[in-house]
Amino acid sequence: MADILHRIGIKSSSIDEVYQALTTRKGLAGWWTNNTHGEGNQTGNVIEFRFGAGGFDIKVIGLTPSTNVLWEVVEGPEEWIGTTISWDLKQDGDYIILLFKHIGWKEPVEFMHHCSTKWAIFLMSLKSLIETGKGTPDPNDVKIDNWN
Amino acid sequence: MADILHRIGIKSSSIDEVYQALTTRKGLAGWWTNNTHGEGNQTGNVIEFRFGAGGFDIKVIGLTPSTNVLWEVVEGPEEWIGTTISWDLKQDGDYIILLFKHIGWKEPVEFMHHCSTKWAIFLMSLKSLIETGKGTPDPNDVKIDNWN
Repeated sequence: MADILHRIGIKSSSIDEVYQALTTRKGLAGWWTNNTHGEGNQTGNVIEFRFGAGGFDIKVIGLTPSTNVLWEVVEGPEEWIGTTISWDLKQDGDYIILLFKHIGWKEPVEFMHHCSTKWAIFLMSLKSLIETGKGTPDPNDVKIDNWN
Repeated sequence: MADILHRIGIKSSSIDEVYQALTTRKGLAGWWTNNTHGEGNQTGNVIEFRFGAGGFDIKVIGLTPSTNVLWEVVEGPEEWIGTTISWDLKQDGDYIILLFKHIGWKEPVEFMHHCSTKWAIFLMSLKSLIETGKGTPDPNDVKIDNWN
Protein backbone atom coordinates (compact mmCIF):
# COMPACT_ATOMS: atom_id res chain seq x y z
CA MET A 1 0.00 0.00 0.00
CA ALA A 2 1.20 3.52 -0.76
CA ASP A 3 -0.09 6.95 0.13
CA ILE A 4 0.00 10.46 -1.29
CA LEU A 5 0.58 13.08 1.43
CA HIS A 6 0.53 16.88 1.22
CA ARG A 7 0.48 19.95 3.49
CA ILE A 8 -0.54 23.47 2.62
CA GLY A 9 -1.11 26.56 4.75
CA ILE A 10 -3.87 28.96 3.77
CA LYS A 11 -3.65 32.54 5.04
CA SER A 12 -7.12 32.91 6.54
CA SER A 13 -8.82 33.20 9.89
CA SER A 14 -11.98 31.41 8.70
CA ILE A 15 -11.52 27.68 9.03
CA ASP A 16 -15.21 27.35 8.13
CA GLU A 17 -14.53 28.95 4.74
CA VAL A 18 -12.00 26.22 3.95
CA TYR A 19 -14.40 23.55 5.22
CA GLN A 20 -17.09 24.97 2.90
CA ALA A 21 -14.66 24.79 -0.03
CA LEU A 22 -14.37 21.04 0.65
CA THR A 23 -18.05 20.29 1.27
CA THR A 24 -20.13 22.43 -1.12
CA ARG A 25 -20.56 22.08 -4.87
CA LYS A 26 -19.71 25.74 -5.37
CA GLY A 27 -16.57 25.50 -3.25
CA LEU A 28 -15.29 22.32 -4.89
CA ALA A 29 -16.02 23.70 -8.37
CA GLY A 30 -13.91 26.73 -7.46
CA TRP A 31 -10.64 24.86 -7.17
CA TRP A 32 -10.87 21.23 -8.47
CA THR A 33 -13.14 21.08 -11.48
CA ASN A 34 -15.83 23.40 -12.82
CA ASN A 35 -17.74 20.26 -13.74
CA THR A 36 -18.75 19.19 -10.21
CA HIS A 37 -22.20 17.82 -9.35
CA GLY A 38 -23.57 17.11 -5.90
CA GLU A 39 -23.06 18.48 -2.42
CA GLY A 40 -20.50 17.14 0.03
CA ASN A 41 -22.15 18.29 3.24
CA GLN A 42 -23.91 15.02 4.17
CA THR A 43 -22.28 11.66 4.80
CA GLY A 44 -23.48 9.15 2.23
CA ASN A 45 -23.69 11.77 -0.54
CA VAL A 46 -21.90 10.99 -3.78
CA ILE A 47 -20.21 13.89 -5.58
CA GLU A 48 -19.46 13.60 -9.30
CA PHE A 49 -16.27 15.27 -10.45
CA ARG A 50 -15.72 15.38 -14.21
CA PHE A 51 -12.60 16.38 -16.12
CA GLY A 52 -11.77 16.44 -19.82
CA ALA A 53 -10.12 13.05 -19.53
CA GLY A 54 -12.66 11.30 -17.26
CA GLY A 55 -13.72 11.70 -13.70
CA PHE A 56 -14.39 10.38 -10.23
CA ASP A 57 -17.49 9.60 -8.16
CA ILE A 58 -16.68 10.17 -4.52
CA LYS A 59 -18.76 9.22 -1.49
CA VAL A 60 -18.59 11.34 1.64
CA ILE A 61 -17.93 8.89 4.48
CA GLY A 62 -16.98 11.24 7.30
CA LEU A 63 -17.57 14.87 8.28
CA THR A 64 -16.36 16.69 11.39
CA PRO A 65 -17.15 20.36 10.81
CA SER A 66 -14.06 22.59 10.49
CA THR A 67 -11.85 19.60 11.38
CA ASN A 68 -12.02 16.71 8.93
CA VAL A 69 -13.58 15.54 5.69
CA LEU A 70 -13.27 11.90 4.62
CA TRP A 71 -14.07 10.57 1.16
CA GLU A 72 -14.12 7.16 -0.51
CA VAL A 73 -13.67 6.85 -4.27
CA VAL A 74 -16.50 4.68 -5.63
CA GLU A 75 -16.06 5.18 -9.40
CA GLY A 76 -13.20 6.32 -11.64
CA PRO A 77 -9.84 4.98 -12.80
CA GLU A 78 -9.24 1.45 -11.53
CA GLU A 79 -6.31 2.56 -9.35
CA TRP A 80 -8.53 5.05 -7.49
CA ILE A 81 -11.49 2.82 -6.69
CA GLY A 82 -11.62 1.96 -3.01
CA THR A 83 -8.97 4.50 -2.04
CA THR A 84 -9.79 7.08 0.63
CA ILE A 85 -9.03 10.78 0.72
CA SER A 86 -8.73 12.57 4.06
CA TRP A 87 -8.67 16.31 4.68
CA ASP A 88 -7.58 17.52 8.15
CA LEU A 89 -7.89 21.19 9.08
CA LYS A 90 -6.41 23.15 11.98
CA GLN A 91 -5.67 26.79 12.73
CA ASP A 92 -2.00 27.64 13.36
CA GLY A 93 -1.41 31.37 13.85
CA ASP A 94 -2.30 33.24 10.66
CA TYR A 95 -2.68 30.02 8.71
CA ILE A 96 -5.19 27.24 8.31
CA ILE A 97 -3.12 24.11 7.91
CA LEU A 98 -4.53 21.45 5.62
CA LEU A 99 -3.11 17.93 5.87
CA PHE A 100 -4.10 15.86 2.87
CA LYS A 101 -3.87 12.08 2.54
CA HIS A 102 -4.86 9.93 -0.45
CA ILE A 103 -4.59 6.50 1.08
CA GLY A 104 -4.74 2.90 -0.08
CA TRP A 105 -3.10 2.83 -3.51
CA LYS A 106 -2.35 -0.84 -4.20
CA GLU A 107 0.90 -0.14 -6.08
CA PRO A 108 3.14 2.92 -6.57
CA VAL A 109 2.44 2.96 -10.32
CA GLU A 110 3.49 5.78 -12.65
CA PHE A 111 -0.09 7.13 -12.56
CA MET A 112 0.26 7.53 -8.78
CA HIS A 113 3.38 9.69 -9.32
CA HIS A 114 1.30 11.86 -11.68
CA CYS A 115 -1.62 12.12 -9.25
CA SER A 116 0.69 13.09 -6.38
CA THR A 117 2.07 16.08 -8.31
CA LYS A 118 -1.37 16.99 -9.63
CA TRP A 119 -2.89 16.96 -6.13
CA ALA A 120 -0.24 19.50 -5.06
CA ILE A 121 -1.25 21.73 -7.96
CA PHE A 122 -4.95 21.49 -7.06
CA LEU A 123 -4.21 22.17 -3.38
CA MET A 124 -2.41 25.35 -4.46
CA SER A 125 -5.57 26.18 -6.44
CA LEU A 126 -7.62 25.74 -3.24
CA LYS A 127 -5.15 27.99 -1.38
CA SER A 128 -5.52 30.61 -4.10
CA LEU A 129 -9.32 30.37 -4.06
CA ILE A 130 -9.45 31.19 -0.35
CA GLU A 131 -6.65 33.78 -0.33
CA THR A 132 -7.54 35.65 -3.53
CA GLY A 133 -11.10 34.58 -4.38
CA LYS A 134 -9.91 32.80 -7.53
CA GLY A 135 -8.76 29.22 -7.99
CA THR A 136 -7.65 27.42 -11.15
CA PRO A 137 -10.00 24.42 -11.44
CA ASP A 138 -10.12 22.18 -14.53
CA PRO A 139 -10.21 23.12 -17.42
CA ASN A 140 -8.06 26.09 -16.37
CA ASP A 141 -5.76 24.02 -14.18
CA VAL A 142 -1.96 24.16 -14.38
CA LYS A 143 -0.72 21.33 -16.61
CA ILE A 144 2.14 19.22 -15.27
CA ASP A 145 2.83 16.60 -17.97
CA ASN A 146 1.47 14.81 -21.06
CA TRP A 147 -1.33 13.27 -18.97
CA ASN A 148 -2.25 16.85 -17.99
CA MET B 1 8.83 3.32 5.37
CA ALA B 2 7.10 5.90 3.21
CA ASP B 3 7.96 7.54 -0.11
CA ILE B 4 7.28 10.79 -1.91
CA LEU B 5 6.53 10.24 -5.61
CA HIS B 6 6.06 12.76 -8.41
CA ARG B 7 5.84 12.91 -12.22
CA ILE B 8 6.29 15.90 -14.47
CA GLY B 9 6.55 16.23 -18.23
CA ILE B 10 8.89 18.86 -19.65
CA LYS B 11 8.27 20.06 -23.21
CA SER B 12 11.73 19.61 -24.67
CA SER B 13 13.60 17.43 -27.12
CA SER B 14 16.88 17.67 -25.20
CA ILE B 15 16.96 15.05 -22.49
CA ASP B 16 20.59 16.05 -21.92
CA GLU B 17 19.49 19.57 -20.97
CA VAL B 18 17.31 18.15 -18.18
CA TYR B 19 20.13 15.85 -17.09
CA GLN B 20 22.44 18.89 -16.89
CA ALA B 21 19.86 20.71 -14.73
CA LEU B 22 20.14 17.83 -12.25
CA THR B 23 23.91 17.39 -12.31
CA THR B 24 25.54 20.84 -12.60
CA ARG B 25 25.75 23.58 -9.99
CA LYS B 26 24.37 26.11 -12.46
CA GLY B 27 21.44 23.91 -13.38
CA LEU B 28 20.51 23.03 -9.79
CA ALA B 29 20.82 26.69 -8.72
CA GLY B 30 18.39 27.56 -11.48
CA TRP B 31 15.42 25.72 -10.02
CA TRP B 32 16.06 24.51 -6.42
CA THR B 33 18.13 27.06 -4.54
CA ASN B 34 20.38 29.90 -5.68
CA ASN B 35 22.63 28.93 -2.79
CA THR B 36 24.02 25.69 -4.25
CA HIS B 37 27.65 24.65 -3.97
CA GLY B 38 29.33 21.71 -5.68
CA GLU B 39 28.89 19.81 -8.90
CA GLY B 40 26.69 16.72 -9.25
CA ASN B 41 28.39 15.20 -12.27
CA GLN B 42 30.62 12.69 -10.44
CA THR B 43 29.53 9.89 -8.14
CA GLY B 44 30.87 10.49 -4.65
CA ASN B 45 30.56 14.28 -4.95
CA VAL B 46 28.67 16.07 -2.18
CA ILE B 47 26.49 19.02 -3.17
CA GLU B 48 25.54 21.62 -0.55
CA PHE B 49 22.08 23.10 -0.92
CA ARG B 50 21.29 25.99 1.42
CA PHE B 51 17.93 27.66 2.06
CA GLY B 52 16.86 30.45 4.40
CA ALA B 53 15.71 27.88 6.93
CA GLY B 54 18.63 25.44 6.71
CA GLY B 55 19.85 23.06 4.07
CA PHE B 56 20.92 19.64 2.86
CA ASP B 57 24.22 17.98 1.95
CA ILE B 58 23.59 15.43 -0.72
CA LYS B 59 25.98 12.78 -2.06
CA VAL B 60 25.72 11.64 -5.66
CA ILE B 61 25.60 7.83 -5.51
CA GLY B 62 24.51 6.98 -9.05
CA LEU B 63 24.66 8.55 -12.50
CA THR B 64 23.43 7.10 -15.78
CA PRO B 65 23.65 9.93 -18.31
CA SER B 66 20.28 11.12 -19.64
CA THR B 67 18.56 8.29 -17.74
CA ASN B 68 18.96 8.42 -13.96
CA VAL B 69 20.46 10.42 -11.13
CA LEU B 70 20.58 8.95 -7.62
CA TRP B 71 21.32 10.91 -4.45
CA GLU B 72 21.73 10.10 -0.78
CA VAL B 73 21.09 12.75 1.87
CA VAL B 74 24.10 12.85 4.21
CA GLU B 75 23.34 16.00 6.24
CA GLY B 76 20.23 18.05 6.98
CA PRO B 77 17.01 17.64 8.96
CA GLU B 78 16.99 14.39 10.91
CA GLU B 79 14.08 13.00 8.88
CA TRP B 80 16.05 13.42 5.64
CA ILE B 81 19.34 11.83 6.67
CA GLY B 82 19.83 8.46 4.99
CA THR B 83 16.92 8.93 2.58
CA THR B 84 17.55 8.57 -1.15
CA ILE B 85 16.29 10.68 -4.02
CA SER B 86 15.97 9.17 -7.48
CA TRP B 87 15.43 11.00 -10.77
CA ASP B 88 14.42 8.92 -13.82
CA LEU B 89 14.28 10.51 -17.25
CA LYS B 90 12.73 9.27 -20.49
CA GLN B 91 11.56 10.82 -23.75
CA ASP B 92 7.86 10.36 -24.55
CA GLY B 93 6.80 12.22 -27.71
CA ASP B 94 7.20 15.96 -27.21
CA TYR B 95 7.90 15.53 -23.49
CA ILE B 96 10.73 14.47 -21.28
CA ILE B 97 9.09 12.56 -18.46
CA LEU B 98 10.71 12.87 -15.06
CA LEU B 99 9.81 10.31 -12.40
CA PHE B 100 10.86 11.50 -8.97
CA LYS B 101 11.14 9.37 -5.82
CA HIS B 102 12.22 10.48 -2.34
CA ILE B 103 12.54 7.14 -0.64
CA GLY B 104 13.09 5.84 2.86
CA TRP B 105 11.26 8.21 5.21
CA LYS B 106 10.97 6.36 8.51
CA GLU B 107 7.55 7.80 9.38
CA PRO B 108 4.88 9.76 7.47
CA VAL B 109 5.31 12.78 9.74
CA GLU B 110 3.74 16.19 9.12
CA PHE B 111 7.09 17.45 7.77
CA MET B 112 6.93 14.73 5.11
CA HIS B 113 3.52 16.06 3.97
CA HIS B 114 5.13 19.51 3.65
CA CYS B 115 8.14 18.20 1.73
CA SER B 116 5.90 16.27 -0.67
CA THR B 117 4.01 19.42 -1.68
CA LYS B 118 7.19 21.48 -1.78
CA TRP B 119 8.92 18.96 -4.07
CA ALA B 120 6.01 19.33 -6.52
CA ILE B 121 6.52 23.09 -6.49
CA PHE B 122 10.27 22.77 -7.11
CA LEU B 123 9.69 20.24 -9.91
CA MET B 124 7.40 22.78 -11.57
CA SER B 125 10.27 25.27 -11.16
CA LEU B 126 12.57 22.81 -12.98
CA LYS B 127 9.94 22.41 -15.74
CA SER B 128 9.76 26.20 -16.07
CA LEU B 129 13.55 26.55 -16.16
CA ILE B 130 13.82 24.21 -19.15
CA GLU B 131 10.70 25.40 -20.98
CA THR B 132 11.10 29.16 -20.46
CA GLY B 133 14.71 29.64 -19.33
CA LYS B 134 13.59 30.81 -15.90
CA GLY B 135 12.89 28.80 -12.75
CA THR B 136 11.85 29.97 -9.30
CA PRO B 137 14.57 28.67 -6.95
CA ASP B 138 14.79 29.67 -3.28
CA PRO B 139 14.55 32.50 -2.18
CA ASN B 140 12.09 33.24 -5.00
CA ASP B 141 10.25 29.93 -4.63
CA VAL B 142 6.47 29.66 -4.37
CA LYS B 143 5.49 29.47 -0.69
CA ILE B 144 3.05 26.72 0.30
CA ASP B 145 2.55 27.09 4.06
CA ASN B 146 3.94 28.56 7.31
CA TRP B 147 7.05 26.36 6.99
CA ASN B 148 7.55 27.96 3.54
